[in-house]
Amino acid sequence: MTSPTDPTDPLAHIRDLFDLDDDVVYLDGNSLGAPPKAVAERVQHVVREQWGRRLIRSWSEGWWEAPERVGDRVGRLIGAAPGQVVVADSTSVNLFKALMGAVRNTDRMEIVVDEGTFPTDGYIARSVSELTGLALRAAPPEELDLRDTTAVVLLNHVDYRTGRLLDMARLTEQVHAVGAKVVWDLCHSAGVLPIELDALGVDLAVGCTYKFLNGGPGSPAFIYVPKAGQPVFDQPLTGWTGHEAPFAMSPEYTPDPGVSRARVGTPDIISMLALDAALDVWDHVEMADVRAKGLRLTSHFMSLVDDLPDIEVITPRDEWRGHQVSLRHPEAKRIMAQLIERQVIGDLRPPDVLRFGFAPLYNTFADAERAAATLKTLL
Amino acid sequence: MTSPTDPTDPLAHIRDLFDLDDDVVYLDGNSLGAPPKAVAERVQHVVREQWGRRLIRSWSEGWWEAPERVGDRVGRLIGAAPGQVVVADSTSVNLFKALMGAVRNTDRMEIVVDEGTFPTDGYIARSVSELTGLALRAAPPEELDLRDTTAVVLLNHVDYRTGRLLDMARLTEQVHAVGAKVVWDLCHSAGVLPIELDALGVDLAVGCTYKFLNGGPGSPAFIYVPKAGQPVFDQPLTGWTGHEAPFAMSPEYTPDPGVSRARVGTPDIISMLALDAALDVWDHVEMADVRAKGLRLTSHFMSLVDDLPDIEVITPRDEWRGHQVSLRHPEAKRIMAQLIERQVIGDLRPPDVLRFGFAPLYNTFADAERAAATLKTLL
Repeated sequence: MTSPTDPTDPLAHIRDLFDLDDDVVYLDGNSLGAPPKAVAERVQHVVREQWGRRLIRSWSEGWWEAPERVGDRVGRLIGAAPGQVVVADSTSVNLFKALMGAVRNTDRMEIVVDEGTFPTDGYIARSVSELTGLALRAAPPEELDLRDTTAVVLLNHVDYRTGRLLDMARLTEQVHAVGAKVVWDLCHSAGVLPIELDALGVDLAVGCTYKFLNGGPGSPAFIYVPKAGQPVFDQPLTGWTGHEAPFAMSPEYTPDPGVSRARVGTPDIISMLALDAALDVWDHVEMADVRAKGLRLTSHFMSLVDDLPDIEVITPRDEWRGHQVSLRHPEAKRIMAQLIERQVIGDLRPPDVLRFGFAPLYNTFADAERAAATLKTLL
Repeated sequence: MTSPTDPTDPLAHIRDLFDLDDDVVYLDGNSLGAPPKAVAERVQHVVREQWGRRLIRSWSEGWWEAPERVGDRVGRLIGAAPGQVVVADSTSVNLFKALMGAVRNTDRMEIVVDEGTFPTDGYIARSVSELTGLALRAAPPEELDLRDTTAVVLLNHVDYRTGRLLDMARLTEQVHAVGAKVVWDLCHSAGVLPIELDALGVDLAVGCTYKFLNGGPGSPAFIYVPKAGQPVFDQPLTGWTGHEAPFAMSPEYTPDPGVSRARVGTPDIISMLALDAALDVWDHVEMADVRAKGLRLTSHFMSLVDDLPDIEVITPRDEWRGHQVSLRHPEAKRIMAQLIERQVIGDLRPPDVLRFGFAPLYNTFADAERAAATLKTLL
């Protein structure tokens, strides 16, 4: 049994970079990551110095390029070389850009979405279907039934309810085999495991930054558009900051030749630079270590709760899982409320799923043990 | 001649609520408002207390409803009763929602946009035209040439280059006379003068919060959807937070019955609550006073620069202007650079327009005088 000061845990010292109370077992980093200490100070600097002292001049002193610069930092964590990721807007808005960008100028006839998708992905896919006239079909990832009429497939890398991880390499290859494009939603996998978007030839990807990337509540999302796809990436949110010459104030829209064409309106700087500060944590860690510890933490927790009465572990036992453990219990709602009262914070997915997210940057084996022990007392 | 301590200026004490250096003449509040002092402290509270201590629980302790709550605060400044404004996304994204919402389910054939529009409005209108098949026509506001085939008219309340103010009452009536809808872009008028969206029966409006509302760089924008129009407001960015039951995680999208259907993704809380703090300033002022002082400040400045060599004032002299003064000069670029070196901060709209924004909350008559005197030395 390992302990929080386990000398074999190469990430044990990283928890000190987070502003977390010692008496809290925080297992909801899959919904809202904990604050890295650097964020509060950075945000003060942005408000008091950059905005307060430099005022409008800050736009030409680093603000304007922040979506691309911070995007490159996110890119490093998901296997994207520089110049292919921008941080902007919300995941839902980026999904709209990605799907519209994927299906414009196609003569193919359908959009496929994995049937267990996070709802917003399905809603946006439906909207794109209605706007473009392409059919929308939901299918299980094991049986996508792709055809030469399939235009694009939208897949959630990690299932938000069960924590199941899809095989990005195999599925990307499957989609490409029929000549379709794939859009990956990385909300529950960015910051969880090494991702190789460039190496796998992924067409488009989106994700949020407020879960395992700890960017803060509702921090801006990202979109990945690889170099090869940029010239044909035609998305309908043609805001001025995606223009090739935004300050020329030209009446005609000409998209930026690169990834900046995925930008829309004026970037939200305070939140963007809060995220920038939060990403500093990643300068000190290897994603392989994060992944290894995440698998150990979740395995350990599953082994501790496995025999508890009426508990069903719905997260896969093998490596095809993210860093969350989902448990089914008929009284999930009562149990989660009581856990939270006892400072063990997870969340609920109605009607009956308890979710526990393990963030290897700040969660410890002691967290897993206290959570399991508390759960046991409530059953 | 009035002075900064003018006893007749009911807003003289408001400048103390802003964190502005005394040696700076900041005349770019029409591009980025100055920081209210309350913002830095509030943002610290949000990061350290709400995020740091309460973690995920803060979502049910005020974060979730922030778009509507802060929206109502903005609404009070633009003549919108509660429940009709949400703060979310960027102006460009909100324009997309507004225009798509205005033209869906219409059998009319054209979108009209004022020909001097801020570029992003024109770009988004073009995109909506391409998506929907409606024609797009640019027209001068004096001669919109509206027809019974016009579906929607998009107008900028204050022209970003010249500062001209349009007659919202008259134009709204004109648009309604042909049975079309009007979308007002309030970016350069929110926080400038009393606006009466409800009373005028405006169909839709959008605007940013980082200019005269001082929300911070790229702070989230707003969209107004009046009660009567909400049931038919069908916008394609169907993100999960616009759902009538977002946490039910239903596979089908059913929009919220009210203004929340204009929400898309997870709201960006740090920036949202920075804006919330910035809006506190408005609790202490009457918009009529802001407007009166703005007209006096801009009149005063125009009178001081009127006879300067090669300067052409392109802002209207009458009351049909916002709170900016735009001057044309062949060497505008050099002059603005030199003004900024001398701590008189305005901005440039290429090729030859110098813009000076007067924010009555923090700008003084001394600011106008120093700006004019500095300009004079450079000519």
